[in-house]
Amino acid sequence: MRQEIILSTSKKQEIIDITPKVNEIIKKSKVKNGLCNVFAVHATAAIIINENYDPNVCLDILDALNKLVPAGIWRHDKIDSNADAHIKSTILGSNETIPIKNNELYLGRWQAIMFCELDGPRSSRRIIVTVIDD
Amino acid sequence: MRQEIILSTSKKQEIIDITPKVNEIIKKSKVKNGLCNVFAVHATAAIIINENYDPNVCLDILDALNKLVPAGIWRHDKIDSNADAHIKSTILGSNETIPIKNNELYLGRWQAIMFCELDGPRSSRRIIVTVIDD
Amino acid sequence: MRQEIILSTSKKQEIIDITPKVNEIIKKSKVKNGLCNVFAVHATAAIIINENYDPNVCLDILDALNKLVPAGIWRHDKIDSNADAHIKSTILGSNETIPIKNNELYLGRWQAIMFCELDGPRSSRRIIVTVIDD
Repeated sequence: MRQEIILSTSKKQEIIDITPKVNEIIKKSKVKNGLCNVFAVHATAAIIINENYDPNVCLDILDALNKLVPAGIWRHDKIDSNADAHIKSTILGSNETIPIKNNELYLGRWQAIMFCELDGPRSSRRIIVTVIDD
Repeated sequence: MRQEIILSTSKKQEIIDITPKVNEIIKKSKVKNGLCNVFAVHATAAIIINENYDPNVCLDILDALNKLVPAGIWRHDKIDSNADAHIKSTILGSNETIPIKNNELYLGRWQAIMFCELDGPRSSRRIIVTVIDD
Repeated sequence: MRQEIILSTSKKQEIIDITPKVNEIIKKSKVKNGLCNVFAVHATAAIIINENYDPNVCLDILDALNKLVPAGIWRHDKIDSNADAHIKSTILGSNETIPIKNNELYLGRWQAIMFCELDGPRSSRRIIVTVIDD
């Protein structure tokens, strides 16, 4: 069973918790135990899993990425000024695969599944959620 | 089929080979061919795949991470002094999905699946292993 | 259903688009909707998803990795001078899992699935493609 989440982003860089939306899709699927793949169909965004309880963790993640991969110094910037977003997306990865237990994402207490915008704002970012029975 | 591995870690940072434990779970599942997802339910740990034959590879991986993401300079450190572990966990990723062939992990000669402790020592780190038939 | 792709690489570092080869395997499998796992059985290579339309994006990715993880300064270099390739492989990851829609990889317009050689040239790099029905 596959369903899509469509998001608008409002900043150049932004991390958005999508855990409740992914859990809604799993609930509809009625899959009790299995795997859930969450996939961003974009080369300048990523899917990550980490803490959202202290929102500073997300700001720290973006700060660290910006220190590691500064903007404006790459070949691709000559035709489109977002090479850093492509590199960050490649390092973080476009997808995560998470166990399903009792018809829900089986995450740890401090884990959330999040969409990471790296070249926003954009009006229709698409995330594909695929649910597989085990 | 899903089963858990529980580990204690003894150092601040530590990489532990879990390949034999994951293979035991696959053996019990009797799945001959398919996929195995290995997922750490923690925001300050990660699952990685690399070489364990020369243990220096694991030390080099931790050294590289510590150079890229130093400790103690992030916003989240004001409430919990482990922001660097959250950032490293996000970069490495909490999970890996590996093919199963002949009722075993189908890894390369130099590949092992390993738990990466980034904020230890901790007494009960949990890893979820999910086995799917193809 | 599982099938292998075997590649030769011709440079020390090289990113090779394997999207058409993965789609051929999916076509043979006749799986209409599900998941496709693409896994490199090597500790000095990786599987990544990003843009291949402007080939400079791939060169930028390699440049960024080489700035972040320079060669020749690690413990493992004393026995095999490729520690940087192991570290880069660990950061990028050996595998990706992608949705299948209408018997094809469901990728975004600017996304390609690519093999990333980090310690070439090598004559037989193996990539395992596993196709799962949803």
